[in-house]
Amino acid sequence: NSNLKLFSLNSNPILAREIAKVIGVELGKCSVSRFSDGEIQINIEESIRGCDVYVIQSTSAPVNEHLMELLIMIDALKRASAKTINIVIPYYGYARQDRKARSREPITAKLVANLLETAGASRVITLDLHAPQIQGFFDIPIDHLMGVPILADYFKEKQLDDIVIVSPDHGGVTRARKMADRLKAPIAIIDKRRPRPNVAEVMNIIGNVQGKTTILVDDIIDTAGTITLAANALAEHGAKEVYACCTHPVLSGPAIERIQNSKIKELVVTNTIAIPEEKKTNKIVELSVAPLIGEAIIRVHEEQSISALFD
Amino acid sequence: NSNLKLFSLNSNPILAREIAKVIGVELGKCSVSRFSDGEIQINIEESIRGCDVYVIQSTSAPVNEHLMELLIMIDALKRASAKTINIVIPYYGYARQDRKARSREPITAKLVANLLETAGASRVITLDLHAPQIQGFFDIPIDHLMGVPILADYFKEKQLDDIVIVSPDHGGVTRARKMADRLKAPIAIIDKRRPRPNVAEVMNIIGNVQGKTTILVDDIIDTAGTITLAANALAEHGAKEVYACCTHPVLSGPAIERIQNSKIKELVVTNTIAIPEEKKTNKIVELSVAPLIGEAIIRVHEEQSISALFD
Ligand SMILES: Nc1ncnc2c1ncn2[C@@H]1O[C@H](COP(=O)(O)O)[C@@H](O)[C@H]1O
Ligand SMILES: Nc1ncnc2c1ncn2[C@@H]1O[C@H](COP(=O)(O)O)[C@@H](O)[C@H]1O
Repeated sequence: NSNLKLFSLNSNPILAREIAKVIGVELGKCSVSRFSDGEIQINIEESIRGCDVYVIQSTSAPVNEHLMELLIMIDALKRASAKTINIVIPYYGYARQDRKARSREPITAKLVANLLETAGASRVITLDLHAPQIQGFFDIPIDHLMGVPILADYFKEKQLDDIVIVSPDHGGVTRARKMADRLKAPIAIIDKRRPRPNVAEVMNIIGNVQGKTTILVDDIIDTAGTITLAANALAEHGAKEVYACCTHPVLSGPAIERIQNSKIKELVVTNTIAIPEEKKTNKIVELSVAPLIGEAIIRVHEEQSISALFD
Repeated sequence: NSNLKLFSLNSNPILAREIAKVIGVELGKCSVSRFSDGEIQINIEESIRGCDVYVIQSTSAPVNEHLMELLIMIDALKRASAKTINIVIPYYGYARQDRKARSREPITAKLVANLLETAGASRVITLDLHAPQIQGFFDIPIDHLMGVPILADYFKEKQLDDIVIVSPDHGGVTRARKMADRLKAPIAIIDKRRPRPNVAEVMNIIGNVQGKTTILVDDIIDTAGTITLAANALAEHGAKEVYACCTHPVLSGPAIERIQNSKIKELVVTNTIAIPEEKKTNKIVELSVAPLIGEAIIRVHEEQSISALFD
């Protein structure tokens, strides 16, 4: 591994240290700070000439700061003669802006892919892209890891009885199916619809949740509107308990308050996004993706297939 | 002008309105806001298909927010079939990171040029780049305007007697010379040097300032350390009055306090950067670059030379 250098930027320093431990390397020395006027100042404090460099940075909030740190770091590494620049983006921000849903909208997820390539990235490692099609936005190799096995293993160890995996909307059924397979459980779907315009939405449930231990699964929980409405609908339909889980805990705006006031008993998330101390509550359980990402980096570096990581 | 559309992003809305007035168009309808998690949301609210679009945005603080707004706007305009996307960047941020001064530094000014081109910009109009070489970082046409005539005209109207134009450092002598030519005045140079390591700097002055009305000129005033030390040195060397002027009032950190406590009588700046209300003081005079930029846009749009703007 002498040729492998691992750097952390400012989004997830704790995760980066965990990944370094899994791989068995020290984090590279570099400082990422701000000039007086807020411009980003990066100093790479050790030679990386001819090295395979891995940079850990989620484009989580503040997304524009974190993205620019990453772009400027890539520029600095390129000019310092890195052999390859592999960017590890545990949470890929702007992923929801992945198509023109209305006229004259940007497709920012594609723009970001272009910016990363322009800066000089050679490869991307990421987790649970909001739409898997975003892989196609890149012309460089991309390794797409999945959070579902980590979340499923947690619930397996809990040895809950009579569980049902629930998708909070139609878009998440494939993810719920994957989770259900791992837990040998059936699935249910929250079937939200508005009977007529200007009439409140009805929360139908497809599948049987009466008396069951229900586990809601999603990729991103942002303002937590969808997931808490779904949790409360499950409770109203007779679910015994409601767990919720997701890979990316964005948790913006009213999210924490909504979760605390909801029927969700426990919210299980991964650390692709670092949750600030003031947002942590007794309901939230964080699982680390460091073993998964660390193993992926080792395999990529040794030019082995990473598909075994998905079994 | 039917084919010309002018849009403002969030950095300088007042300047953008002034420019619209000079050109004689309405600002295009678009909203630039934030999703709950801080991601930028842009809605262009009128058709721009086949139009020559001009977007006004300084990459002033918060620089990363303003730069990403501009990149995402360019992406949206491109996908909405704009004929040309002309970006007007009155203040080009990251311009001081224009070379590797130390090992393993990024060249962010070049990175930003690449990002703007990748997003889809067809042309750049900007003012007083910190280094004129940054023009060469672009492979698209760039029009480089100058603030010195606007600053010089202000002092000409004041009809001050016995003036000397002063460069606060060796790097700014060319600019001081240009200003002096317009005002038919001599120049002086602050010649800062450290006689031995760990000994305080000595502020020498090359040229005669005794009993003179001195006008310090710079491109950027950021923390105002250089300019206020220079002003105080001029006063100590017998200058009758000290004025200061610059194109880009970055004014970060201790700048305002330093200026208020310095020998500077008046600081004359342009509005390439919008000064927040709480930083405005009775010492600061703002001149508008709207006539200059508006005229440049008209000439570019009508495919006329802009060199007349420099006379
Ligand atoms: N950061 C964001 N927060 C909330 N909504 C977003 C965000 N980014 C994009 N969107 C919108 O979310 C929609 C896509 O969400 P989805 O249907 O879940 O793929 C699009 O209409 C986007 O305009
Ligand atoms: N935003 C900034 N604030 C202060 N210094 C900067 C900034 N950006 C770059 N620099 C440094 O300023 C120096 C260039 O300034 P100059 O010699 O005036 O061209 C370089 O050494 C940069 O590292």
